[in-house]
Amino acid sequence: MCDCDYMFPSNDEWEKHYDNCKLVWEELYDRTCPRNNDGTLRLCNANLSKLETDFLYHLGFDTKTHNLPALFGDVKFVCMGGTKHRMRDFAKHIAKELKIKSDFANMTKQSHRYAMYKVGPVLSVSHGIGIPSMTILLQEVLKLLHYAKAKNPIFFRIGTSGGLKIPPGSVVISSWGMNGTLQKTYDIPILGKVRQIPSFFDKRLSQEVQSLASDVGFGTYIGGTMAADDFYRGQARLDGPICDHTEDEKLEFLNTLAELGVKNIEMEATAFAALTSEAGVRAADVCVTLLNRLEGDQVSISKATYAEYQVRPMLVVGRYITKYYVDKLKR
Amino acid sequence: MCDCDYMFPSNDEWEKHYDNCKLVWEELYDRTCPRNNDGTLRLCNANLSKLETDFLYHLGFDTKTHNLPALFGDVKFVCMGGTKHRMRDFAKHIAKELKIKSDFANMTKQSHRYAMYKVGPVLSVSHGIGIPSMTILLQEVLKLLHYAKAKNPIFFRIGTSGGLKIPPGSVVISSWGMNGTLQKTYDIPILGKVRQIPSFFDKRLSQEVQSLASDVGFGTYIGGTMAADDFYRGQARLDGPICDHTEDEKLEFLNTLAELGVKNIEMEATAFAALTSEAGVRAADVCVTLLNRLEGDQVSISKATYAEYQVRPMLVVGRYITKYYVDKLKR
Repeated sequence: MCDCDYMFPSNDEWEKHYDNCKLVWEELYDRTCPRNNDGTLRLCNANLSKLETDFLYHLGFDTKTHNLPALFGDVKFVCMGGTKHRMRDFAKHIAKELKIKSDFANMTKQSHRYAMYKVGPVLSVSHGIGIPSMTILLQEVLKLLHYAKAKNPIFFRIGTSGGLKIPPGSVVISSWGMNGTLQKTYDIPILGKVRQIPSFFDKRLSQEVQSLASDVGFGTYIGGTMAADDFYRGQARLDGPICDHTEDEKLEFLNTLAELGVKNIEMEATAFAALTSEAGVRAADVCVTLLNRLEGDQVSISKATYAEYQVRPMLVVGRYITKYYVDKLKR
Repeated sequence: MCDCDYMFPSNDEWEKHYDNCKLVWEELYDRTCPRNNDGTLRLCNANLSKLETDFLYHLGFDTKTHNLPALFGDVKFVCMGGTKHRMRDFAKHIAKELKIKSDFANMTKQSHRYAMYKVGPVLSVSHGIGIPSMTILLQEVLKLLHYAKAKNPIFFRIGTSGGLKIPPGSVVISSWGMNGTLQKTYDIPILGKVRQIPSFFDKRLSQEVQSLASDVGFGTYIGGTMAADDFYRGQARLDGPICDHTEDEKLEFLNTLAELGVKNIEMEATAFAALTSEAGVRAADVCVTLLNRLEGDQVSISKATYAEYQVRPMLVVGRYITKYYVDKLKR
């Protein structure tokens, strides 16, 4: 990870964050795979080179039929989010910002699982809801970019979430993901035993993203994000079909989360941080909060407000990509 | 749970299974909610009656704007599956079988998350990939049917899976779900602590479904199903972006699963069994196997074979629904 891959030269404020960040990354690197010297992804799986053809089943691409370097070799940014609709909107937004023409064709239409749009160096992809759905997409995109020989890709996730003690409509850029048992790890059973993979995001990338959004017209926060595996009981909601905890217990739990530094709750952050770290790529999780969970459970905002809120993570990530594109790629 | 709600009178073969089944159900009932006497769902959450309006956020319905009893009061069967495409195909299949006209309009189009089609007493709904995505849909459909006063609904899931020691193209009807740490439970953190909910399916329903498919032209099995939270390492695959286990370790693990009675691996069974049991509804998980995982990891079958395999769970579930409809509902 070379310092020059960051957007800005480091300053005093960032120096401290970056040092912390490097510690985390070096710790991860000891057991994971940094990128190759030319910035392409060196995936930590010797089996891949033994495959004659690799079928990326849920994307509908394979290494035999498709010329992946020609199709995806220029990808610099991957932006992921829940719905096809949102990721199509993001593709349109970024095409306008970068002044790049696109037909907005869904490149993975035939596989019926996810939707993928490409606008110049930006891949905009839907990942569905929750960690298992997101990690299938993420892992196949990592393999796709590995085979395509894309260089130093940066990953973003744009999403919606429930906020803790911040106004609805705020945008949270995640510093780490916390799981349902309050640990900063992505816990995944492998061969019957749970592996705990640390779930921290690149601090300096988060700082850069936030700094570019300073005058965007709504509050942005850097903070912890809880990734729940359930929308109802798993997020302490009282309005699921089955519930046996009380409102007092719910509020006590949400206050505990807030004291631990959690600013919002969604359903992907831990795995997104863990897998991008393992693969040696930088990532940021940028989510708008639709409500303050201390004040309720139901998402009952108007369609107009929802539409306004949902676009906010696009604006924040769009600013970063646009500045990077204008400053570095277009030159 | 009255015996008369089953399709066939019990016989000697089923008697034993049903007795086992009743034990599991009675154990669950002690801490969950059976249905009301008229067969409507009595959900175990006192908070719901306090809500002035309940917004089923991911479905785009609410109890104020929509007349849910008029829209969904006649639903007897809910059939869920991963993709919108598959569930539209299922809606068309069942419309043909039951000779019911439908416009196949997606009733949840505006919410951009899931797709829902209604054909007479059958609701065909997509749930995306993985437990968190499926449980959001399932929980909101349970609430929907509760408000709609639908009676004694039966839930099916039709899906694809990896098989263990059975020929590709076989259909497995799950007797139970097993999680990634080899326990027959759905483990969900609630207020920071993991709750383990038993994940057994209704044995007699499975038997009924299988018996109607005896001459369907492909093998059907009743057996255990592992529900993984990951498609790659979490299913012992060697072809993910990151992998540090060997082929021998993979085969040892898959053989262990087979010895424990696991016939196939998908990504939803545990939660599907657990939540339907908690809610007091019967359910069956019916999946085709796309490959024998002892022989490989990659899903590289042709499109024609995939299309043929994917329709098999529809045929099996379709037969059950059609017989039930003709024997009981249409009279």
